[in-house]
Amino acid sequence: MKKIAVCLSGCGFLDGAEIHEAVLTLLAIDQAGAKAVCCAPDINQASVIDHLTKSPTAGTRNVLAESARIARGEIVNIRKVSADQIDALIFPGGFGAAKNLCSFAGDGPECNVNPDVERLTTEMLAARKPIGAICIAPALLARIVGRKDLHPKLTIGTDAATAEAINKMGARHCDCPVTDMVVDERHKIVSTPAYMLGKGPAEVFEGIRKTVNEVLRLSAI
Amino acid sequence: MKKIAVCLSGCGFLDGAEIHEAVLTLLAIDQAGAKAVCCAPDINQASVIDHLTKSPTAGTRNVLAESARIARGEIVNIRKVSADQIDALIFPGGFGAAKNLCSFAGDGPECNVNPDVERLTTEMLAARKPIGAICIAPALLARIVGRKDLHPKLTIGTDAATAEAINKMGARHCDCPVTDMVVDERHKIVSTPAYMLGKGPAEVFEGIRKTVNEVLRLSAI
Repeated sequence: MKKIAVCLSGCGFLDGAEIHEAVLTLLAIDQAGAKAVCCAPDINQASVIDHLTKSPTAGTRNVLAESARIARGEIVNIRKVSADQIDALIFPGGFGAAKNLCSFAGDGPECNVNPDVERLTTEMLAARKPIGAICIAPALLARIVGRKDLHPKLTIGTDAATAEAINKMGARHCDCPVTDMVVDERHKIVSTPAYMLGKGPAEVFEGIRKTVNEVLRLSAI
Repeated sequence: MKKIAVCLSGCGFLDGAEIHEAVLTLLAIDQAGAKAVCCAPDINQASVIDHLTKSPTAGTRNVLAESARIARGEIVNIRKVSADQIDALIFPGGFGAAKNLCSFAGDGPECNVNPDVERLTTEMLAARKPIGAICIAPALLARIVGRKDLHPKLTIGTDAATAEAINKMGARHCDCPVTDMVVDERHKIVSTPAYMLGKGPAEVFEGIRKTVNEVLRLSAI
């Protein structure tokens, strides 16, 4: 059974992983007969946002502990995950991917990336194992992969400013509708816009299901 | 377009709504061409559980604000929802349904029910509009409906102790596999075991999709 690591970044689209995208990724993996291995960094969130008022609130939350809510407790510290244990790696979106896994939300193209996220992603590229990136997560991937001068094709949908930032980091942005994906076959990188464009879970699931299935196909070649 | 209220109880299966069940309910509603109206009570959670260690943690969290994470901010206080605004009502599971919407987790068959949850459920029954209940949520429904001597058919899967408690509250428990549902056509109540039995999101989604579609069918007759 193929194992796909799903790297979460908290629990809630304003300060962590986008919950629909994360769950729909787990659904598509399970429907395809593969096994999801949820992981996340053991760090504090960059922020805690009240999702009702959309304002920052006091207190801190841990990315791994909050991600465990989505994973139903079945989650490991990403530090313990290496490319030889898994067949593919997928990053759901949400501001957590751009605030906790890297600092793109605040720093743009000059952002820093969490060292364990960068290490695992680099291992996957070296092992020629596929990587999926959903919603804003392609920006994270652009920062890591662009620095290696690989210039992968990526999509975050159609947002011009984010597309420009992705190109600036060394990737090549391609516009894409929510129900579809962009495949970089050479680097085995698959991306889909999800809630960068999506109006609801049904159309977001279309793009995510295609992404998961393509990642599985690429893991077999 | 049919409107289905989805009553959430927080965000995380140990102290709030079961996240997969909630998202898969929203997916099934969207796929069926209906509109989800997320709601939750504006109360503090009965507990906050670290989903990594599964232990209680300090601090309080608000059920409406945490539920807003699943609803992507699009959520209303259940106090403002009345049966004349909606075509159906669905309760996803998770301990939140048995800790925050009622006190079944601690008090068993003698549990108390949140007044707004009881009021909206009673309005739906009076209006002959359908109600869906997922996972442990049928226990909540048994407490409300059983007191009215309606004796509805309900399922939480096959757990003998919970089934006995449901019968004690005046409902009639029927065993049911995770991919199916139990329909009480007379009272327009549909239930499915979900993670009371489920091993993963694919089989849980089967039961939830059937439940959502049956609730929609019952809303048209």
